Amino acid sequence: MTPELLPFLGRAAVLQMLAFEAYSRIVADVPDLAIKDAVAQSAGAALSRHEGLVAEIRRRGDDPIEVMQPFADVAARLSGVITGEDWRESLLGAFVAFGLLDDFFIRLAEGLPGDFGPRAAQLLSTTTGEDATVRVLRAAIEQDRTLPSLLAMWGRRLVGDTLLVARAALHVTGNVENDELRIEPVLTELIAAHTRRMDELGLTS
Amino acid sequence: MTPELLPFLGRAAVLQMLAFEAYSRIVADVPDLAIKDAVAQSAGAALSRHEGLVAEIRRRGDDPIEVMQPFADVAARLSGVITGEDWRESLLGAFVAFGLLDDFFIRLAEGLPGDFGPRAAQLLSTTTGEDATVRVLRAAIEQDRTLPSLLAMWGRRLVGDTLLVARAALHVTGNVENDELRIEPVLTELIAAHTRRMDELGLTS
Repeated sequence: MTPELLPFLGRAAVLQMLAFEAYSRIVADVPDLAIKDAVAQSAGAALSRHEGLVAEIRRRGDDPIEVMQPFADVAARLSGVITGEDWRESLLGAFVAFGLLDDFFIRLAEGLPGDFGPRAAQLLSTTTGEDATVRVLRAAIEQDRTLPSLLAMWGRRLVGDTLLVARAALHVTGNVENDELRIEPVLTELIAAHTRRMDELGLTS
Repeated sequence: MTPELLPFLGRAAVLQMLAFEAYSRIVADVPDLAIKDAVAQSAGAALSRHEGLVAEIRRRGDDPIEVMQPFADVAARLSGVITGEDWRESLLGAFVAFGLLDDFFIRLAEGLPGDFGPRAAQLLSTTTGEDATVRVLRAAIEQDRTLPSLLAMWGRRLVGDTLLVARAALHVTGNVENDELRIEPVLTELIAAHTRRMDELGLTS
């Protein structure tokens, strides 16, 4: 999978902005200070990755806003998909969807032309703040016995919807048929990583 | 003005979290990517300052959440005060209120015991992202002729409400009468800095 560089950077940057928005919305909605602090770490990490990608676009002499603009609508659609009924669902939504999409973009980055591939993969692999989010979700799950089955169900819906977005994001190489042939093994990997994330929370995937 | 160290750190940390929430709420609400990007810088800067203060509390062997908790309610009240009718009012609200309160906490930091004063003042003085917010507000003001008078009025209301919060925050030395005597010259300084900020936007204060 060899995506074109600029569309890749634009999509990845929009995605990180979206992750920032999703996490920071939870920070603003939750009254508990400890939860605010934990989730704010995830928001900050997404913002750092966004800024790294924007800096890369600028370094190439391109205008980040122009490069990101074509993907703003897809991103907004994803936002509707991952927002849950309460903050616990929304937090799982962000954790599951952006975990999956980050993995996907890291795989895409490996196919980038030039020396930027490894750098992009590294930039997207910084998972600062993820531990704090996992702790918050585990604590919520321990406090409410009805939550595991609810979140497990929500997680299954999320993964389906997120993969649809991932498929749309894949069509950046200009060769759709070729993409489709190559996506199968990647999907298997993504699902395996997703299953590990759900396991970490004590949820069935 | 010699505030006690831990309540100072708790209040300052809560305040920065509040600034993060105010700016990031605007990021989520505004559809324009360029504005999102600019305001996200202010959100990120507030989060960095918050994390610096939390790290300082932890370094002293205290629990950041316990230290911040007593001030969470005052903070929530401020949040109601600075949220405007649209994102332009809310952005001016955040810029004016946190500009004023940051100045105030920098002054308070100067009176802190030990070597932490200058370090706290430095930490609170990092204004990354402020330029971007000023640019966004100036562009909005240029595009809408009805905006300057509206925002000028809103700014006057904000400064009054924010100073009430600042006065409440001042009562950390345990000697209210003494505080009140000392606050006058500080208020004059704060208002002068506020007037400069409004001038920068082309707004009368």
